[in-house]
Amino acid sequence: LPTVGVIGAGQLARMMQPAAVALGIRLVLLAESADASAAQVIPDTTVGDYTDLATLQAFAARCDVVTFDHEHVPTAHLEVLARSVQVRPGPQALVCAQDKVVMRRRLSSAGLPCPRWRSAESAADVVDFAADAGWPVIAKTPRGGYDGKGVALLADPAEAAAAFQRWGAPLLLEEAIAFTRELAAVVARSPSGQAVAYPVVETVQRDGICAEVVMPAPIADEHALAAQSIALQVAAELDVVGVLAVELFDTADGVVVNELAMRPHNSGHWSIEGAITGQFEQHLRAVCDLPLGAPDPVADTAVMVNVLGGCADIAAQYRSVMAHDPGARIHWYGKEPRPGRKVGHVTVLGADREVCAERARYVASRLAGAADG
Amino acid sequence: LPTVGVIGAGQLARMMQPAAVALGIRLVLLAESADASAAQVIPDTTVGDYTDLATLQAFAARCDVVTFDHEHVPTAHLEVLARSVQVRPGPQALVCAQDKVVMRRRLSSAGLPCPRWRSAESAADVVDFAADAGWPVIAKTPRGGYDGKGVALLADPAEAAAAFQRWGAPLLLEEAIAFTRELAAVVARSPSGQAVAYPVVETVQRDGICAEVVMPAPIADEHALAAQSIALQVAAELDVVGVLAVELFDTADGVVVNELAMRPHNSGHWSIEGAITGQFEQHLRAVCDLPLGAPDPVADTAVMVNVLGGCADIAAQYRSVMAHDPGARIHWYGKEPRPGRKVGHVTVLGADREVCAERARYVASRLAGAADG
Repeated sequence: LPTVGVIGAGQLARMMQPAAVALGIRLVLLAESADASAAQVIPDTTVGDYTDLATLQAFAARCDVVTFDHEHVPTAHLEVLARSVQVRPGPQALVCAQDKVVMRRRLSSAGLPCPRWRSAESAADVVDFAADAGWPVIAKTPRGGYDGKGVALLADPAEAAAAFQRWGAPLLLEEAIAFTRELAAVVARSPSGQAVAYPVVETVQRDGICAEVVMPAPIADEHALAAQSIALQVAAELDVVGVLAVELFDTADGVVVNELAMRPHNSGHWSIEGAITGQFEQHLRAVCDLPLGAPDPVADTAVMVNVLGGCADIAAQYRSVMAHDPGARIHWYGKEPRPGRKVGHVTVLGADREVCAERARYVASRLAGAADG
Repeated sequence: LPTVGVIGAGQLARMMQPAAVALGIRLVLLAESADASAAQVIPDTTVGDYTDLATLQAFAARCDVVTFDHEHVPTAHLEVLARSVQVRPGPQALVCAQDKVVMRRRLSSAGLPCPRWRSAESAADVVDFAADAGWPVIAKTPRGGYDGKGVALLADPAEAAAAFQRWGAPLLLEEAIAFTRELAAVVARSPSGQAVAYPVVETVQRDGICAEVVMPAPIADEHALAAQSIALQVAAELDVVGVLAVELFDTADGVVVNELAMRPHNSGHWSIEGAITGQFEQHLRAVCDLPLGAPDPVADTAVMVNVLGGCADIAAQYRSVMAHDPGARIHWYGKEPRPGRKVGHVTVLGADREVCAERARYVASRLAGAADG
């Protein structure tokens, strides 16, 4: 079996390890620090800077395949690596998850549904765009944004000017979509082109951070099928290898692509217990060019709630919540508690969406440090 | 959360790692070799001899709790360790899984159903025993046997004499039970006495090695309830902490205890995907004195088939069997293939027992190196 190098030691790399243990796949990790989330659980860990080409090359020399916990490795470096090792997803796919302007250009030219958008160099461009798309306008830094960072809602020309002052140019402008809910369609694709689609989920964001995920999304079948079909098209169009998460807006008129992530994604965590093949195993199968596993759900409903912040005495909270709900599936990432930080998640499977959601919310809130009652 | 030391680096320790990763529990491992199954996947691994007290003490000094992959640590050493660290299960419980004569004595005095048995010093004792229990007689070495090793069926006094010549005295004698099938009842118990029982399974042995496990066992409810009740009584009676597997014979007259294992057990592997809380997470919860998880199955039926032997080119077999059955759950232990060795297992969940069994058998046989067709 190939040795799989993972660049980045966050919780996504960490959650690849149980899947790798099961299949007997050896992971090697390039970690940002020795105590990072994934570095705690993967024996063969190197601490190094993923923006340094020599570090990346030395790391890749020990791997058959290189994949990622995040999308921050410079594209030019990946192009160099790809000459000597399998980089999955490849640099030309990954750039669409790194650069939102490139993403919009590629998706639009493939005819996939996007909000109105343009790349803007100045506040004057924003005023032009708003004349057509209306105020407010969404502005995003093309690179580096996540969890609501690097995104602003511009109400008028003054705010537009402030955004360029803060972030510089260019910025990606998008029309503010009147959506009814946010969705995610997670798919996986192998080098040979085999692809599978998970059930479409609803993602509930708070302050720009994913708070909850509900499987399946409570939407009309046509919208779910459209979302899956778009995600499969994106995967094929961009030649993605591995898991791809397509975040979408659901609107009265159909679904529209919001963002892409080319790796296991928060919106797919429910699948660890909730699907026959979890997204982390699926990602490993894909990047190892093994046949993909069945993505079918094993329960009617799954609700995943993130633990944001975290409490000081996790053992005490475990004693409380595990006694309260022996059926909740708890995941803890080994990260220092910090306000708003994703430090774990809780999944509850069952028949009734509201029951699952209330159970998962309660356990997650206690693990986040909320008081009893 | 406590740091959990695991003594022994076989596949049972290996399969604790995914559960530990999920809950954020840190494992440290005392391994027999640096490339042992669990040593491949647990970063904090020490190679050392578990029969050496100083090695054990140095290891235990780094742990809050010590638990086990196997039952071979000398009881006297465990008594010493227990003065400075939590040893779970404790030495006085564990001795009943180490010494089959001690086990029979404890279970008989607790009134739990056992075959007729005695400890024998000579072939004359066997003849005596057979006068009452009939030939053939089962003889077992009190310590060290597993997977059919250290067990013999004695047909006559000459074979009895040969057994003592081979193994020395004492030997445990047991009547040969006319059983209809073999069962296992897996339970878990915490230091506070909380206990949970998994559904009773049927175990199918070939050449003394577990080949298949079927959940639930196809037996009458009263027999299943009796088996669970016996296992819970054994756990309480012996003050077991952690997972306890009680192997039983099912007979026309009821169930009879065959053997005990005080750790996650081959008969519980189905629970990794097949129960809300898998046996490895359950074991960690118990030894960490956390509330136990729900043991309920998530499917009507689960069939687990061991991969015995193993093939040279696992990647090629993965490509074949994963394409053939994308819903089979494959576990690979990272062990060198060797005839008869347990190198992995396959679990299939579903509604129909025979369908699950055929699917799991096919995948397992291919992974074991069987040719196509």
